[in-house]
Parts: sequence; C-alpha cells; structure tokens
Amino acid sequence: MNPSTSALLTDLYELTMVQAYLKQGMDEPAVFEFFVRKVPAHRNFFVAAGLEQMLDYLSELRFSQEELAWLDQSGQFSSRLLDYLETMRFTGDVEAMPEGTIFFPYEPIIRIVAPLPQAQLVESRVMNLLNFQTMVASKAARSVLVAGGKPLIDFGLRRAHGAEAGLLAARASYLTGFAGTATVLAGMVYRIPLYGTMAHSFVQSHENEMLAFQHFAEAQPENVVLLIDTHDTEAAAAKVVSLAGKLRAKGITVKGVRLDSGDLADHARKVRYILDEGGLPHAQILASGNLDEYRVKALVESGAPIDSFAVGTAITTSSDAPSLDCAYKLQEYAGRPCRKRSEGKATWPGRKQVYRYLADNGRLDHDIVTMNNDQLSGKPLLQLVMKNGCRLAPSPGLAELRRHAAAQLRQLPEALRALETAPAYDVRISSALRSLAQTVDRRL
Amino acid sequence: MNPSTSALLTDLYELTMVQAYLKQGMDEPAVFEFFVRKVPAHRNFFVAAGLEQMLDYLSELRFSQEELAWLDQSGQFSSRLLDYLETMRFTGDVEAMPEGTIFFPYEPIIRIVAPLPQAQLVESRVMNLLNFQTMVASKAARSVLVAGGKPLIDFGLRRAHGAEAGLLAARASYLTGFAGTATVLAGMVYRIPLYGTMAHSFVQSHENEMLAFQHFAEAQPENVVLLIDTHDTEAAAAKVVSLAGKLRAKGITVKGVRLDSGDLADHARKVRYILDEGGLPHAQILASGNLDEYRVKALVESGAPIDSFAVGTAITTSSDAPSLDCAYKLQEYAGRPCRKRSEGKATWPGRKQVYRYLADNGRLDHDIVTMNNDQLSGKPLLQLVMKNGCRLAPSPGLAELRRHAAAQLRQLPEALRALETAPAYDVRISSALRSLAQTVDRRL
Repeated sequence: MNPSTSALLTDLYELTMVQAYLKQGMDEPAVFEFFVRKVPAHRNFFVAAGLEQMLDYLSELRFSQEELAWLDQSGQFSSRLLDYLETMRFTGDVEAMPEGTIFFPYEPIIRIVAPLPQAQLVESRVMNLLNFQTMVASKAARSVLVAGGKPLIDFGLRRAHGAEAGLLAARASYLTGFAGTATVLAGMVYRIPLYGTMAHSFVQSHENEMLAFQHFAEAQPENVVLLIDTHDTEAAAAKVVSLAGKLRAKGITVKGVRLDSGDLADHARKVRYILDEGGLPHAQILASGNLDEYRVKALVESGAPIDSFAVGTAITTSSDAPSLDCAYKLQEYAGRPCRKRSEGKATWPGRKQVYRYLADNGRLDHDIVTMNNDQLSGKPLLQLVMKNGCRLAPSPGLAELRRHAAAQLRQLPEALRALETAPAYDVRISSALRSLAQTVDRRL
Repeated sequence: MNPSTSALLTDLYELTMVQAYLKQGMDEPAVFEFFVRKVPAHRNFFVAAGLEQMLDYLSELRFSQEELAWLDQSGQFSSRLLDYLETMRFTGDVEAMPEGTIFFPYEPIIRIVAPLPQAQLVESRVMNLLNFQTMVASKAARSVLVAGGKPLIDFGLRRAHGAEAGLLAARASYLTGFAGTATVLAGMVYRIPLYGTMAHSFVQSHENEMLAFQHFAEAQPENVVLLIDTHDTEAAAAKVVSLAGKLRAKGITVKGVRLDSGDLADHARKVRYILDEGGLPHAQILASGNLDEYRVKALVESGAPIDSFAVGTAITTSSDAPSLDCAYKLQEYAGRPCRKRSEGKATWPGRKQVYRYLADNGRLDHDIVTMNNDQLSGKPLLQLVMKNGCRLAPSPGLAELRRHAAAQLRQLPEALRALETAPAYDVRISSALRSLAQTVDRRL
C-alpha cells in the first residue's frame, strides 16, 4: 500500500458528495481555485510549489480493484458511485502559477476546471500536496534571502512529518534555492545534490575521536567533513589539524568540519583560527543545530566564518507556521459564478486571473486580481498547464524552476525581504470582480 | 516509487558511516535509544506512538535492485557497502514502551540493539516515524482530556504534511482516544471508523441551500449530517427543520448538522433551540473550524450544546509544537557504555530501564530511570518486542492500544492534565546511572 498514490487518500465526504452529484446528474463543469487566505505572522509572501506532484496525482488517479472492493464491502456507497470510480479518470483543465512564483493572499495559484464530481473528488489530495510544498518553499525562501549566498542544505528528514514530507521538503527547499539535501531518496528521485557529514554516534563508537576522524576520512576520502562537537569543539579542531598532515601523505584532503552545538559564531571563529594556523585555510566550516532563518541571519551578520548552513526541522516543518490558511473553493458551476460567504471565510467568485506589475527598478509594484476574461496590461500569472487531463508540456524540471524562483526572489522589494512583517503588498481587487461579487450576493 | 518503504529514505551520512564501519570491521553490538529531551511549552507529558510502523520498517527493510543500481552509478560508495546493503536484513533486538504509554523527557521509549552498521543505518527513518506519531498522539491527548467524553474526529488530512502524515495522524489520534477520522485510507488500512459530512461546494453548486440539503439527504439517507454555515447558520437550521418533515415521509432521518464558522457556542445554542422547537431533538450538532484543545475546552466549559468536535490542522500538524526535541543516541558499543557530551545535548549512558511508581490513588507518582540490569520494585516500562529481527508477538491491534492509552490517561495526576505548564513530573535518575555517567566521563 502506497499512501502517496492511493485514491483513498481522501476525505470521506468527497466520496459521499460525488455519490450525491451522480444521483442528481450534476456533472457540469465546475471551477475550483486554490488560494491562501492570509500570511502567517512575520511573513510577507508565499512561494508556490507542489504543482508538479499535483499534476502527477491528477494524471495517475485510479481506484484499484482492492480499493473498490473495500469501498463496496463497507456498505456505505451506491453501486453507481462504485461504477463511476472504477473508470473515473481526471479529464479536466488546470491553470497554474509556475512553481517558484511569489504570490499573496487571495490570489489563486491553481484553477481546476472539470466535471463537478471529478473536481470535487480531488480536493483533499490537491490541498494536501499544495499546502505542504508551498508552506516549505515559503519558509525556505526566508533563509535563502538572509544567507548572503552561502549554501543552505536540508537536514530535516528525521523530523519531517513522515516519508513523503521528508522527500518533498527536500524538493521544495531545493526549488527555492537550497544547495541540496541529506535525503538520499531525493537524490534518486529528483537528482537533488546530496550532502552529508558524520554523526556523533560515529565518534562515540570509537575508542577516541582522533581514531574516528581517521577512519571516517579513510572510508570517505573524497568527502572528509568531520563533526567536531562531540566532546570539545576546539580540541577536536586541533586534532583535525594534526590528522590532516598524515592524511595528506595518503592523498586525502580534509574538506571541512561541522559545528553542531554551542555558540556557533564563537566556535566558528576559534575553529577558523585553529584551521588557518594549522595550514588548513581551505577547510570549510559547516554549521548546523536548530538553525532557522533568524539564526542564519544573525550568524551571517555577525561575520562568523561559516561557509554553509545545514537547516532541518525549522524548514521541513515550517515550525512557526506549520500549515497555510489555504482553501480550494468552488467559484463557478455550470457557468454560474458562486462564492462562499461564511463568516470570516468569504471568497471572490468566478474564474480569476492575477496580473503583476513591476516598478521601474524591476521589483514587484502591485498585483491586480480580476476576472479571467478581463484583458489587462500586466503579466498574467496563471497559465494553462493541463487540458482535458493531459499536460500541455513536459515538466519544466527543477533546474528551470530554480532559475524561476531565484528571479522571483530578486523581484522582491526590500521591505518584503525582511524577516518581520512589512506593510502588506498591494493586491488590488478589480472593480469588475467586485461587481461580480455583488451580483452573486444579490442572487443569493 | 513508494517513499514509505524505500530504503533510501535516509540521510546520506548513514550510508557513509556504514561504509566506514564496514571498512574497519566495526560490527559489534551497538545500543541506541530514542528519547525526547524536553516537553514543548505548555505541555506536560508525551504519549508514545509509532512503534508498530517502526517494527514494520525494521522487518521489511530491503534495498531494491533499482536503489542499489542508483547508489552504484553515483560513484560515491564502495562495492563493499553495496554488497552489504544488497543482503542486509535487520537482525537486532528492540525493547519498547507499548504505544499509548505516557512518558517524560530523557526516558527512552525505544532501545535498538543490533550490529553497529544496522543500528546506524535505520536511524533517520526510525526517528522520522517515532517523532511524528508520538508528536500527534501527545497533542491529540490534550483534546481528549478536555473534551469531557464527547467524540473527537480527525479532519486534518488536507493540511497534514503529505500522504503518510495524513494517514498516520489518523492512526495516532485514534490510538489516543479520537472516535475516528475522515481519511478514507485510514479506514481501509487501520479499520478506523470514518466520519464525514458535506462541503460548502456542495451547497454552492446547487441553485439554493434547501435543494442541496435535500439532494444530499437522498443520496446519503443513512448519514444525513448537513453543513449549515455556507450563508446564514440559523436560517439554514430553519431549512433543515422544514426539510426534515418531508424527509421523514421518505423514511429519512436528519442525523445532525455541522457548524464550521463564526461563534460556535452562540450558533450551537441558537441552532439547538431551532432544532428542538422544530421537533428534531435527536439531531446532533458537530462543530468544526480551526479547533484545537483550547477551543474544545472553552466550548465544553461554556456548556454549548455541541455533541462532537471535528479537529484538523492543529492536531495533525501539532501546530504549537510541530516537532519533538527527540534523539536516537548511541549508548553502548561493543559492551562499552558511551554518552554524548555536546553542549546542551548531553545524554545518560548505557542501556536503561524506566520504572514507574503509582500513588495510592492510582495516579502516576514518579519514575526512576536506571541501568537496565538494575532490578527495582516499580513497573518496568520497556519490554522486549523484537528478537533477532523477529517480532515476539503479533501486533496488539488498535483496539488494545486504545484501551492502554485510555488507562494511561486515567493515571495522569490532575496537574498534568492541564493545558498549561504544570510542575515537572518527578523523573529520578538513579545513583547507579549517575555513577556510570561519571565513569564514562572519566574515561573520556
């Protein structure tokens, strides 16, 4: 059983609603849009991610015989529903902002247009996929913005929320500008560069630290990065210096050391001095240990001689905001625009487009959200990527998405690059859209 | 590719360390223990969960030919490592606290004893599995404690961190005392009771709300729970009353309504009055919408006539503490106890056992953490569950684990049941263990 591909990874009500739609013959085109209602505290923007996995999901959605048999024996579902699910394929259209695009509250980043039962059925997993990677990418971007070009590496697998989260967090952070990940599976599946050093257990399992360093270097002569905080960081740095000479005789170079605890800036300065004095000016210093964008920023600003940062839990779980206030909402059915008006959760009706306008300096100036059939002068952010269930083009690939995300981050105005809340970006709702909302309200 | 079962769902350094261990012939028994360093803010205890999936992982760990081929072509690994991985099976022992057991900081909940390369290799995924379910169970328990016996239902799939997180959050919350979940796959895989109502989109796709209610009821006559907040909650409750008569004539009973926005206590009182006056005293009220343990407690204490609560994101993501400060640490190698002494991250050495002592009222009094070969009078919490890679008994099943968890929650002293920080529970480190730590320190 693969939870990542099971069609039953959905909420029960999706099935019961589809059953009701089928009974009523309600299979006209439905338009759903995915958007986020508000930015979390201290945040200023989002980075769209997860489109690729969502398109995979839509393309490959099938109910297996085992799943159908289980639904049948549960006695809760009509044979009409089961027949429908057996042959059901996603045949709809998808418009989307490319992954890596910066966006703001109430801007749709995905629109799905499909017969109502299909568009409804996919809700749970579409949200599950888009929420997670967009959340990680939006969090990771903050570290990228403050790292001053120093490489960031994802070390978050162990505290990611399960297997898929570990794998996709590596993807979302790499897409956003990380240099790589420790998660081996992400190397195989997405060709993301892999990084790794050694664990405290490796040191502890040896009689002494020096022997551990030596054994590690001999087994990994191409990638000697030694973890030096197991007992005493500076003492270990001195051991690295003394070992380096012997290793050099064997043709092995010490590539670097990793600091994982204590005052990282202070240790980095002392260790840099020891390494430089010991003839290892090229040995790099990697810092890790409960890092997040605030600590990375402080370390960079302190001028601490740290060459790269491994960040884990804070990014992989988006620790300060471990979910987005996102929604996948019906905006039109059978040609009739609709909106949700629940208290505090109202939405803008109809099919929408987001137009982006840049200032003269090339930075973001404002966006306009309007009806899809409006033709404005700005750059439209939503593009058709799937038609009748088929992708219009092959996946762009992570290299291209990384270039796009980097270009997007360069367009951020200074204020929005801050780690603290800036004045909200100017997102305008067009008068056409406002008047459509009034029309819908009058009808209801 | 199934990320949940791939042997490559691991950190790169696990592979490079195993390569080094093999090169040195270091395959003596290693003892690793998993524990949590500290309780998150406002928390008082943890609930152990994830053992079952961890044992599955250890039992089924295999490197596929495709994975081995990928590792080989990467050029980073020795043929000795690849040969080892090809035939590698987990042959170690596991001692564990049963799932559902309450535990506290620095108490090991899992001990793995295996040849060093094996015990090292499994680190990343063991932590990934134990961290997540223990985190969710520990969070879910807080809602269970304040719900006053009212059913709690997991609605968290859409904002869970990926597929496996959605599935396992349903399991962890059910284990801890939830009544069920909306996640269909959890019904199939774990036989967890499924719950569901309807979405706003169902109402919106109809010409009017009344018609939507009618269609839903006719398609789901056995489970008519109507969502009534799409436009105006009380007006919708009146529609439910007026519809109920017509449905009764068709033999259909309105089972309940769902409130999803606004002041839930206020809406519940008004809706209860409308339903009662309208002859529907048995129709239940389910509340949902950004609920967490604090809101559940406030609603229960307010006396609002809510019959059950659907909670989602807050539990599934453990929103206030989306990870545990957990560790999987080497405590002994080749018969030699060891410990990590890194700043702020020191551990107790050796194989340990946790003894629990109850007060006269049957509630938890204190625990003693000591060396495993100590024989104390209290109840030892760690039990051997796997020997030489084989389970000693079949999985206990969720029904039994639920009984155990419920019994454990009943043993919580009043102070620890609070949603705010109580004085820390009394966990004593035995003098034998302290003196072992001194001995280890002297050796280092």
